[in-house]
Amino acid sequence: MQIVITAVGPDNRGLADPIVHYVTGHGANIAEIQMYDHDEACLFAMLLRIDMPADEYDALEEAMRAIGREKQLSVRVWSPERRAARPRLAICTTYRMEPPLALLRALRDGQIQAEAALMLGNRPQCRSLAEQFNVPWHMIGNDAGVADDERLVELCDEYEIDYVILARYMRVLPPASCWKYAGGRIVNLHHGLLPSFPGLRPYQDAYASRMLTYGATCHFIVPELDAGNQIIHQQTFTVPPGMPLADIVRLGQEDNEPRCLVEGVRRVVAREVQLHFHRIVARRR
Amino acid sequence: MQIVITAVGPDNRGLADPIVHYVTGHGANIAEIQMYDHDEACLFAMLLRIDMPADEYDALEEAMRAIGREKQLSVRVWSPERRAARPRLAICTTYRMEPPLALLRALRDGQIQAEAALMLGNRPQCRSLAEQFNVPWHMIGNDAGVADDERLVELCDEYEIDYVILARYMRVLPPASCWKYAGGRIVNLHHGLLPSFPGLRPYQDAYASRMLTYGATCHFIVPELDAGNQIIHQQTFTVPPGMPLADIVRLGQEDNEPRCLVEGVRRVVAREVQLHFHRIVARRR
Amino acid sequence: MQIVITAVGPDNRGLADPIVHYVTGHGANIAEIQMYDHDEACLFAMLLRIDMPADEYDALEEAMRAIGREKQLSVRVWSPERRAARPRLAICTTYRMEPPLALLRALRDGQIQAEAALMLGNRPQCRSLAEQFNVPWHMIGNDAGVADDERLVELCDEYEIDYVILARYMRVLPPASCWKYAGGRIVNLHHGLLPSFPGLRPYQDAYASRMLTYGATCHFIVPELDAGNQIIHQQTFTVPPGMPLADIVRLGQEDNEPRCLVEGVRRVVAREVQLHFHRIVARRR
Amino acid sequence: MQIVITAVGPDNRGLADPIVHYVTGHGANIAEIQMYDHDEACLFAMLLRIDMPADEYDALEEAMRAIGREKQLSVRVWSPERRAARPRLAICTTYRMEPPLALLRALRDGQIQAEAALMLGNRPQCRSLAEQFNVPWHMIGNDAGVADDERLVELCDEYEIDYVILARYMRVLPPASCWKYAGGRIVNLHHGLLPSFPGLRPYQDAYASRMLTYGATCHFIVPELDAGNQIIHQQTFTVPPGMPLADIVRLGQEDNEPRCLVEGVRRVVAREVQLHFHRIVARRR
Repeated sequence: MQIVITAVGPDNRGLADPIVHYVTGHGANIAEIQMYDHDEACLFAMLLRIDMPADEYDALEEAMRAIGREKQLSVRVWSPERRAARPRLAICTTYRMEPPLALLRALRDGQIQAEAALMLGNRPQCRSLAEQFNVPWHMIGNDAGVADDERLVELCDEYEIDYVILARYMRVLPPASCWKYAGGRIVNLHHGLLPSFPGLRPYQDAYASRMLTYGATCHFIVPELDAGNQIIHQQTFTVPPGMPLADIVRLGQEDNEPRCLVEGVRRVVAREVQLHFHRIVARRR
Repeated sequence: MQIVITAVGPDNRGLADPIVHYVTGHGANIAEIQMYDHDEACLFAMLLRIDMPADEYDALEEAMRAIGREKQLSVRVWSPERRAARPRLAICTTYRMEPPLALLRALRDGQIQAEAALMLGNRPQCRSLAEQFNVPWHMIGNDAGVADDERLVELCDEYEIDYVILARYMRVLPPASCWKYAGGRIVNLHHGLLPSFPGLRPYQDAYASRMLTYGATCHFIVPELDAGNQIIHQQTFTVPPGMPLADIVRLGQEDNEPRCLVEGVRRVVAREVQLHFHRIVARRR
Repeated sequence: MQIVITAVGPDNRGLADPIVHYVTGHGANIAEIQMYDHDEACLFAMLLRIDMPADEYDALEEAMRAIGREKQLSVRVWSPERRAARPRLAICTTYRMEPPLALLRALRDGQIQAEAALMLGNRPQCRSLAEQFNVPWHMIGNDAGVADDERLVELCDEYEIDYVILARYMRVLPPASCWKYAGGRIVNLHHGLLPSFPGLRPYQDAYASRMLTYGATCHFIVPELDAGNQIIHQQTFTVPPGMPLADIVRLGQEDNEPRCLVEGVRRVVAREVQLHFHRIVARRR
Repeated sequence: MQIVITAVGPDNRGLADPIVHYVTGHGANIAEIQMYDHDEACLFAMLLRIDMPADEYDALEEAMRAIGREKQLSVRVWSPERRAARPRLAICTTYRMEPPLALLRALRDGQIQAEAALMLGNRPQCRSLAEQFNVPWHMIGNDAGVADDERLVELCDEYEIDYVILARYMRVLPPASCWKYAGGRIVNLHHGLLPSFPGLRPYQDAYASRMLTYGATCHFIVPELDAGNQIIHQQTFTVPPGMPLADIVRLGQEDNEPRCLVEGVRRVVAREVQLHFHRIVARRR
């Protein structure tokens, strides 16, 4: 069974030792280890991907919980195989309703075999969607839209979330949150064609260079800021010269972005793709 | 009548004066002037776009010819309006046959209202296409494929070419050639999505960054190397993660590139787009 | 005599014709013409660099003034040769006092042969410097520091300024202002090494990529946003690994930037460099 | 004692387990683990940085040798502390003699406290330098200058090299070689200012953008191609506008590059800097 262990702590000293010692002593094969030391942010993190017999999972989880308590680490154990038939999704939103709406419909209609277990917003705009589709809703933003990042992780833990879907969620997840759900569990919809058009205004940037192709990108979030190579799906459309920007944005937001998100989440849930040493790979089956 | 005058010479001194003096003295309105001084290459050039009564065209051409003779300048006069109903195309080729073949078919079938007046190659590969479609063929490359750039311009002059189509022609036109046919007369097919993937290996470059969107770009060539903003048409396709590069290249070369070129040339010939101060604009009609 | 004519107007129609017609009819040689059409901003502009006998200057100026009045254009005539022995500078400031202070001292001590004819600020911080060195001071910013861009140009006209020096002036000049003083008359001090570190936070950006070389750049402003190639002088310093950012910024602001500006302005005033087709060249003497 | 273990093998399976198991079972603290899986190149690699009592070093080395033999891995154990007083350098050369000459002089004069234990070349040009300074010389290039990369590593192993110095060595080390000497043991002299001017022609590239600052960069090589953040030292010089490229290159090659390399190697040998999670840090003392 493929198992992902993540550990996050405030101190580099002894972060890796007890966890690594346990797994190598209990018959696991180490497939991948990544460690990071963001000393300026006092953030130390490790991702461990191992193969281990499935019947060791509960003992492992218990052991990791004990290590976390003892060493003051935030440790998580997860396997993509445990709820593979029907993984649980958290859908994070801000203003735009089209992408979460398309995703909720695809879940309802069985186009994506997963459960909408939780909806979040740092703004209240998408609350009605949660009510309409009967999904638990939590508001995590203050009056200025600043999100409570720790609350987001707590809720995902509490609702036993497998995949966190950022459906035009317009806040940057802090590195600690990315590490806690590392290993290909956070999926983002970016409303531009990566890597060419990152940033907050990809339609405007592409328009400014008189591009005729516009696109959206569905990708895994990995914990380093400058990472690339995690594109799950891209959806594009082409316009004739002279189309006004407002029309292009409308085409993108109302049609292209929702389609991109739905197909991207479908691929993740169906485990057609996975992260492997920070790169996306098609899963061999 | 919109008229484009280009002048190229080895010396900056007196390049602009006689031409500008003539046109301002004969009732023309100057819509655009661009001058360039590539002193390192001893190349001095000017583009003049004017509005002038159509019945002045012949006199203007004669006067410019005289100035060119007297001042040792290479001067050209052209109007997109003179053969607008059926402009004459030069199709420049190297190895790949798919793009010129698609273009020749579209011309034969009347999908594009223009005449294949001339085919060129710096390699002999596409000669059989010229014979099949009964288009005059000229080989301008030596045994190593090095093109005779002056011969290319001479042939275009001789065949009274309106638009030069670079159909996967794999040589860079020198600045002097670009200036001589400046003003939106040279159309290139690039086999990558600009501006993200320029260079000689755009499929490989996009693949290396694990892009899932691939595309081709049809654009006007303008005489400066760092120019952008001249995209006429982009055609894209999207692949699933894991598709081998060879399959992607095949999809691109056999299907996507030819379609991109045909639509791009159609837009130019139909005058749906034009260059305006180095940027592409949809023509107001 | 080398003369620069700039014209700015709200309409492309007839911008170039009367000016070009006059100069070609009065024995001038055209050395450079640039026209721009920022249609989205309704800004049409032309730069004309000509050679003309010096005794024609006054008549030319009068004729251009008449054309400006008649055609509703903002036309300016200037020659770098008229006050070459002691050109008049406008020093534009915001917060930082070190660069303008170093410049005022260099002017007082005769290290730079020019006159501090005007000091401006969009913030009041540098007013005391103007008083100390007895230079006319004008505040052009409102309470939020927003500058009155038209007032800046008016003041430069009124004080018969030859060169506008942006001495850590933290506002972007609008294109219309850049065109009105085009031709190598606006000198900017950027506190990073161009072209690698543009933007508002070049120290931070260089630090983030763990650069050990920091620098400042003195360059001409040209009217297009994406222009390069106008670097007059660069001044650098190198630090050992581990130096805190605050110390680096202090070294840069207090020592490196002022030295960069003084040497850059000295080169411009001494006419060691000039703009030529948007590129800087050493003046042949 | 800080110890670096590197392991390189053709297969991901079981690469990490035995090594990690040994060190966590023998009282080591894990400070850093990096694993890489270059599946396209069939290259799997691990870097392990640990703290361990110095008297365990020999037993560790023996154990790692046994694991290497058994698992068909290329395993190396190294500590920067063992020969800290006088580390052994390999100096790799191609054509240019100025950088290795300056380095050999600095070693002879005690400016750098290290031993020139080995000189290599993929071209014979610097052989006379090795003879003059009485350093063992090995030619590792064929007639076309293609280097025998495995021979380079073998020689470094055989001569017990601590640091590999690429003194204008114009070949790219393959990832396997970089991994085998990972952990801050390979120092390169690049003849341009990084990150702005990478590539083979940094003088030409900087000149083409009319930069007035030129520089050289001494940096650690890390095994990934796109890594940055490893700059040990940068040395710059500034030229006036108009200086010909040939003069700039001469200034750079004859004066600036040699000085950059000497100071960079001095910092490494004196252990003023070290690699820490792929970033350079000043060593706390």
